[in-house]
Amino acid sequence: MKRYEQLASDIAESIANGTLPLGARLPSVRQTCSSRGVSPSTVFQAYYLLEDRGLIQARPRSGYFVASSASTVPEPESSRPSGEQQDVEVSELVFQVLEHMRDRDLAPLGSAFPDPSLFPLEKLAMAQSKAMRRLDPWRTVEHLSPGNPELRRQITLRYLATAFAIDSSELVITNGAMEALNLSLEVVTQPGDLVAVESPTFYGALQALERLNLRAIEVPTHPRTGVDVSALASILERHPVKACWFMPNFQNPLGSLMPDEAKQALVELITERQIPLIEDDVYGELYFGAHKPRPAKAWDTQGLVLHCSSFSKTVAPGYRIGWVAAGRFAATLARRKLMSSLAAAVPSQEALSRYLQQGGYDRHLRRLRLTLLGNRTAALRAIAKHFPPGTRASPPEGGYFLWIELPMNIDALALHRLALANQVSSAPGHLFSADHRFSHHLRINFGQADASELEAALAVLGKLASSLI
Amino acid sequence: MKRYEQLASDIAESIANGTLPLGARLPSVRQTCSSRGVSPSTVFQAYYLLEDRGLIQARPRSGYFVASSASTVPEPESSRPSGEQQDVEVSELVFQVLEHMRDRDLAPLGSAFPDPSLFPLEKLAMAQSKAMRRLDPWRTVEHLSPGNPELRRQITLRYLATAFAIDSSELVITNGAMEALNLSLEVVTQPGDLVAVESPTFYGALQALERLNLRAIEVPTHPRTGVDVSALASILERHPVKACWFMPNFQNPLGSLMPDEAKQALVELITERQIPLIEDDVYGELYFGAHKPRPAKAWDTQGLVLHCSSFSKTVAPGYRIGWVAAGRFAATLARRKLMSSLAAAVPSQEALSRYLQQGGYDRHLRRLRLTLLGNRTAALRAIAKHFPPGTRASPPEGGYFLWIELPMNIDALALHRLALANQVSSAPGHLFSADHRFSHHLRINFGQADASELEAALAVLGKLASSLI
Repeated sequence: MKRYEQLASDIAESIANGTLPLGARLPSVRQTCSSRGVSPSTVFQAYYLLEDRGLIQARPRSGYFVASSASTVPEPESSRPSGEQQDVEVSELVFQVLEHMRDRDLAPLGSAFPDPSLFPLEKLAMAQSKAMRRLDPWRTVEHLSPGNPELRRQITLRYLATAFAIDSSELVITNGAMEALNLSLEVVTQPGDLVAVESPTFYGALQALERLNLRAIEVPTHPRTGVDVSALASILERHPVKACWFMPNFQNPLGSLMPDEAKQALVELITERQIPLIEDDVYGELYFGAHKPRPAKAWDTQGLVLHCSSFSKTVAPGYRIGWVAAGRFAATLARRKLMSSLAAAVPSQEALSRYLQQGGYDRHLRRLRLTLLGNRTAALRAIAKHFPPGTRASPPEGGYFLWIELPMNIDALALHRLALANQVSSAPGHLFSADHRFSHHLRINFGQADASELEAALAVLGKLASSLI
Repeated sequence: MKRYEQLASDIAESIANGTLPLGARLPSVRQTCSSRGVSPSTVFQAYYLLEDRGLIQARPRSGYFVASSASTVPEPESSRPSGEQQDVEVSELVFQVLEHMRDRDLAPLGSAFPDPSLFPLEKLAMAQSKAMRRLDPWRTVEHLSPGNPELRRQITLRYLATAFAIDSSELVITNGAMEALNLSLEVVTQPGDLVAVESPTFYGALQALERLNLRAIEVPTHPRTGVDVSALASILERHPVKACWFMPNFQNPLGSLMPDEAKQALVELITERQIPLIEDDVYGELYFGAHKPRPAKAWDTQGLVLHCSSFSKTVAPGYRIGWVAAGRFAATLARRKLMSSLAAAVPSQEALSRYLQQGGYDRHLRRLRLTLLGNRTAALRAIAKHFPPGTRASPPEGGYFLWIELPMNIDALALHRLALANQVSSAPGHLFSADHRFSHHLRINFGQADASELEAALAVLGKLASSLI
């Protein structure tokens, strides 16, 4: 990373974690030069980059200020699910929304993936090409589940860098996190079992529950701090919950981040009750703060947490490489993987293994986080400007999803359909609950390559929302 | 294909289909020159190639003869399963045997895959490298299930070449045939349902049944002609079978091939009763006869057959690309795929799509079949020579598995363990039935790159078997 990029990244972090609040004045160029020991041109380059990302604004003769935006959009409240056990039936809508992801003519606010042009696909293709050209043929049959040993070693090293260790023997490579999560659910439940999920919930979790004939109970979840652990405790008192499926880091769709103390309390609770926790952590690397947030698994002492992640949201969606650090369930899960799809694709494993070895992943991630943070600011600004009064949104500390609560009388599904006719996709709140409760909510993907296109699409969406009041 | 290769291939086919029976004298070089219009050196090259493959033998001053071998090994009889419905519990043994596949120090007679050096891995890597270097980033998210349209088109064309058409809209690309088969079973059954399988059965089918809490009923199966359709008819009379899972072409482990009339009768039977048929056809391309055998799906008029196959046994095991032509179940199955693992790996799809487009697959297959046919002859010769009297084996018309029936008092599991200690792996018959009935049977993989190593390994195995009498 160049000097000005480092400076820009540090300032971006200060903005994200609130050290530099919205609207605050940045130190003058002269101050920054002397405090950081850098040249004026380095500072200017950093400020231009941040301005370009929409994080700061220049005011003539006054200097640079943190771009104001979120301050005018209030935060939604914590969810209040019914508290009932529910059968799960996935709505047709999920498949329709997934289908729209393929349509390039739509502004992809409803997509589940960041813009693929944000990914280092050429570098990956080169790494793959090198690895496959000299591949020992035997590796095409040897690297069945649990997967390529070097890739598993690289992933283990990344856990270590986040300040906790896993044993590489508990790692199973999968066809993306989706398979990791499905296999985890398969090994810790029986048909008919009850599973605790967040409210709102990632629709993929609801689909997995339906597939395995499981029932769901939704836990109150705060848009900023995630699962309400004391509410969960009282649910566990009253209901025969057999597993939990949560996303402590940058939850989909809320973007919420559970504080460390809450994660610790969560793991203590499930440990006391010996209930397995399936932890979906696919967005953990996309943090805007100073440090990567730790997964709940960091507090797991008994191998009860099945920690699932992938490279699909950070570097290579189509490569379909995910994994699970499955704790005490690792051996059972590896066999389940062998039985259901044998192994993950060798070329994909080789490509990622080599890419991680050669370095460059962290540099890519720093750049990606900066882009996403800038987009978040731009998105909140556009929402404040174009959406009807009464709209709420919670600015996430990572990931690329924004959860928007519209005024009560706007039906998100009607808005979704209207927006499609105007070439903008969205993910209506209906998708994220078994009882379709979030009817005036939207999940917005701000992982776009071009912030101005993002703002334009949000302007269209906001105006259409206003027209529905 | 060069002229002498074409000639050799034609003669090999005549041997395989019985036009040239074992021990028969080949036409003289002079006769062949005039009948085929080729030079003597072409004929000699072809004969040398066939001799090298073990298919023919020169006798001084007498000419060339079809190598005799199989004639001395009698064929096993048709299986006689119990006729009872059975719960399925996969034995620990399957996982142990799969584990041994990774051990390069073992002669891989127990492996499920052909020797990977028989595959065109370099050409595939080049195709992949070219395809990925110029890949439009959007394709990494667009090609979710049902998969890459060009790859699906190429697969559809291959069906057409086998003289029956499928609609590419019923094709779903999967992570290998294993996932295709598992998804097929998921969409046509409910937990507790009864599924008809062959006897012996591919252990992967038993694993899939166990995973989904299904029960099995085994159907009498002949080592040469496969499923006994009239026995199946009477089972369907008496038991509430909800699905069939069969391998009409080169069944694993028998190598049996159902005649066309039997396939037609099978499809008429399941159509009359509206029972879906999951057809596992991963070995269909590895035929030794003059034509590719048609799948049972060729007679399907109502979309009841889910035809599953892959490239894993013919060109690229580690790429994990399979498919299912799912008939009336296609839409449901594509959604199931989205829900369980989203998509197959894009680099693998791109590589195979390009490889199929650029040509060379059929040339590779012709060479592979010739090698396998030669190995079959060598294997039968080694069995006749080194195995104890009373050993039976059925020479398959395709694929790379030989099913061996040892004398009754030899426990295949004891032999398996003894052989492992002598650096030879094998697949004991116990693996291939829910009630472990095939206790004096072995499945032998003859898909080796080096026929002399294959013969040496069989010599070791045969002597060990003799020592156990």
